[in-house]
Amino acid sequence: MQKNIQYNAEGELQHFLTIDDLHRETLEQILDTAENFAGVNDKAIKKAPLLRGKTVANIFFENSTRTRTTFELAAKRLSADVLNVNLVTSSTKKGESLLDTLRNLEAMQCDMFIVRHGDSGAAHFIANHVSEHISVVNGGDGQHSHPTQGMLDMFTIRRAKGSFENLCVVIIGDILHSRVARSDIAALRILGTREIRVVAPRTLLPADVEAMGVSVYHNIEQALQDADVIMGLRLQNERMQGATVPSADEFFLTYGLTQERLQLAKPDAIVMHPGPTNRGVEIDGLVADGPQSFILQQVTFGIAVRMAVMAITMSANQNPIGSNVDESGTSQANSVTSNPISG
Amino acid sequence: MQKNIQYNAEGELQHFLTIDDLHRETLEQILDTAENFAGVNDKAIKKAPLLRGKTVANIFFENSTRTRTTFELAAKRLSADVLNVNLVTSSTKKGESLLDTLRNLEAMQCDMFIVRHGDSGAAHFIANHVSEHISVVNGGDGQHSHPTQGMLDMFTIRRAKGSFENLCVVIIGDILHSRVARSDIAALRILGTREIRVVAPRTLLPADVEAMGVSVYHNIEQALQDADVIMGLRLQNERMQGATVPSADEFFLTYGLTQERLQLAKPDAIVMHPGPTNRGVEIDGLVADGPQSFILQQVTFGIAVRMAVMAITMSANQNPIGSNVDESGTSQANSVTSNPISG
Amino acid sequence: MQKNIQYNAEGELQHFLTIDDLHRETLEQILDTAENFAGVNDKAIKKAPLLRGKTVANIFFENSTRTRTTFELAAKRLSADVLNVNLVTSSTKKGESLLDTLRNLEAMQCDMFIVRHGDSGAAHFIANHVSEHISVVNGGDGQHSHPTQGMLDMFTIRRAKGSFENLCVVIIGDILHSRVARSDIAALRILGTREIRVVAPRTLLPADVEAMGVSVYHNIEQALQDADVIMGLRLQNERMQGATVPSADEFFLTYGLTQERLQLAKPDAIVMHPGPTNRGVEIDGLVADGPQSFILQQVTFGIAVRMAVMAITMSANQNPIGSNVDESGTSQANSVTSNPISG
Repeated sequence: MQKNIQYNAEGELQHFLTIDDLHRETLEQILDTAENFAGVNDKAIKKAPLLRGKTVANIFFENSTRTRTTFELAAKRLSADVLNVNLVTSSTKKGESLLDTLRNLEAMQCDMFIVRHGDSGAAHFIANHVSEHISVVNGGDGQHSHPTQGMLDMFTIRRAKGSFENLCVVIIGDILHSRVARSDIAALRILGTREIRVVAPRTLLPADVEAMGVSVYHNIEQALQDADVIMGLRLQNERMQGATVPSADEFFLTYGLTQERLQLAKPDAIVMHPGPTNRGVEIDGLVADGPQSFILQQVTFGIAVRMAVMAITMSANQNPIGSNVDESGTSQANSVTSNPISG
Repeated sequence: MQKNIQYNAEGELQHFLTIDDLHRETLEQILDTAENFAGVNDKAIKKAPLLRGKTVANIFFENSTRTRTTFELAAKRLSADVLNVNLVTSSTKKGESLLDTLRNLEAMQCDMFIVRHGDSGAAHFIANHVSEHISVVNGGDGQHSHPTQGMLDMFTIRRAKGSFENLCVVIIGDILHSRVARSDIAALRILGTREIRVVAPRTLLPADVEAMGVSVYHNIEQALQDADVIMGLRLQNERMQGATVPSADEFFLTYGLTQERLQLAKPDAIVMHPGPTNRGVEIDGLVADGPQSFILQQVTFGIAVRMAVMAITMSANQNPIGSNVDESGTSQANSVTSNPISG
Repeated sequence: MQKNIQYNAEGELQHFLTIDDLHRETLEQILDTAENFAGVNDKAIKKAPLLRGKTVANIFFENSTRTRTTFELAAKRLSADVLNVNLVTSSTKKGESLLDTLRNLEAMQCDMFIVRHGDSGAAHFIANHVSEHISVVNGGDGQHSHPTQGMLDMFTIRRAKGSFENLCVVIIGDILHSRVARSDIAALRILGTREIRVVAPRTLLPADVEAMGVSVYHNIEQALQDADVIMGLRLQNERMQGATVPSADEFFLTYGLTQERLQLAKPDAIVMHPGPTNRGVEIDGLVADGPQSFILQQVTFGIAVRMAVMAITMSANQNPIGSNVDESGTSQANSVTSNPISG
């Protein structure tokens, strides 16, 4: 059996790259830990000292203000030092020079790399090449995986519904190109969801969609019957130019989540979307802002879930937290403070 | 009477958008609080724990390194986490999508928005739409208002002159386009200044200038007679191309603050300017650097005044500071620290 | 004798601009202090409270993500607030307006300026014009000096070799344009290195190279005989276009550090390079990644050395650290905390 590089030798989660091959216990550990941090974020002082003195490098090869911001906030609320490393502009850098950049960040004694990259598999590549004292967290790689988004979606569902066993979850839209959909489906299956439905035109479904363990629908009204959870996906602009769907208007007509269609689901069904929403394309603005919408809660829970992932993976790398943590933060540096400047 | 959205239900200052409709007591509270923070900034350790665990988002729709930097320093010296959100590049975003951006920052549990925007009224619009746990501070909106600049100018004057009742203040230059002038005049009036004079060519004065409660001059020598405080304003480059003034040289000849003209004011008159100065346009370099110049003190006091505004407005929002503040910063997170990682 | 502006009236190092005219004791103080900080960086919590409440402004007139990042990390690990001021885009700013920018940063009560500039002498110019409570650290100016790089190289050598008296150090490549080479040679001489050799084509050597106190070689095989330390230098792209060397390939053929050539040095010789390396130009990738390479250790030690330089120079300026340091960080602000908001 091939080694799963996400777990260290002790079986602890050191990297967080994809949900696909994680144990159910790991997912539940992330959700339970995030519950603790959601409490921190509700307090007047949103600050936990857990990663004090740790350096988190946000390494973004692809622009994403939104995701970078939530990771940055999560790290700061854990008291880490954050380094934003924007490599979008140096897109020609490849292979060896990417590794050179990583080696240098390692040498600066960073403890965690948050990686966002346009190529599927980039986060795995990096995790395979970093030294033991680093944790790698995938902030989205190509069309492959966006596991922290997947886990914040699971957190949102568990908060609203309690558990997964009896749920019918419907995912609408561009399954083919969505790393969010892939991560959500993996997580929902591992957590034992009763039924997962996807509904989309054939052009937005992967060829092997049945193998994903989902029921496939092409009619949204049928798909929404008795749904507990309805997840929209963002339709990228380039898809709306007639390449894979006739037009944005046509898509809304056939697959848009309207108030009328929402009534086909269970009365207490919740509506989710990874954002940013295209109102009038995937979703009616009245639904996005309506009482069943959990879209903004997803953003809020995203901070807590990212804090949880950071805390868990950091505690599994070779620079463990808490080993000699001193709450006042001073005794660590006593030898330095008492007579710091030689000569 | 229309509700003043700057004050909360308890009459405390929750937002700081414009000076125009504030009570004199509020202005004095800001000045008194800034005195405390000016003391902090003089100390070897320029740090107060007041906003520890709070997240301040600097939302800039308009470039301004200078203003952004002073707000960032003010927030950091209050121990807040600072998020710089640059929306200059996404200038096409309008209406709904601006609100979407704000809703997301709210969902990330930010506590304060510092807003800089090219449109007059933008800060009010945002304050009208944020949830109760957010404070909005106007960092300059269009030609409308720049209230923290106004208050730092008042702080500078009070430091130098003690009180406002007996003062003659002269404001020179582009009153028409200056949000600084508007904020200064409002503050000076509320604080009971004896006489406010403006001096400028007609093309740089608003049509309703008399209604602002100021005396209008077109001759700088007359305006400077017996002045206690002389405030220059920055002349934007586009005004110097012959559109509203014949040329930069011509402006300096007629309205520039020279050493010779300065002697017409009281011997202890102080010279102020919001910066950056155009030397040889609004002001002679020798005056800007001379013994009567308070231009750099304005920058210094600007940090203390912004700390005061942040502290006061934050204490009035629904996420009050100090409610369960623990100086060591650890007990808040005890449940997390003691057993943070579930499973 | 001209005053050395790097030392204050008490003979303490207030600015760190160039290694050339420093005392040996100062260099040893920096190395000894860096030893303490290297310990901090090895710990789980890489944080010392020494510069808590201080503001460090990273003022970069020249792009250098790498150097800026190490200074930023060093400052954050000393608990300082860091302000990144990018002036690359405003390259037309000159003379007076540079001073205006500095005066404003001073007025914001920054305590330290890290300066990177394309013009030789820029850091000295700035140090000559700042007020007494500021320390200036040169982060590289033109072809003049890069003293923190010089000191991290010395730290690396001392860690590997213990002392300098018996060493033979060989510097290969573009001595003419390298501020690193200049700083290294100055430091090696002050620290009493037995022999310093430089090896390069004549086009990459300064006219007065003999006056630098080094032995000059044009044959790399001869230069490497019995070497203890081998330092490569980065060859800039513009030199490889036939201007000063025939081509990158030709340079590697004649001066590249290969495994074969490395064997001419002592068996325990160490290989260094300031990075980023041009593999196949100055150095063979196998040597750069080989067991004798200290290239990544240089990066690691660079953080500790920059922490040492910051701590030493800050303690010599007019805003001394430690004078009223309170570890909990609260008593400083007591007057503010107990009743911060007036009115």
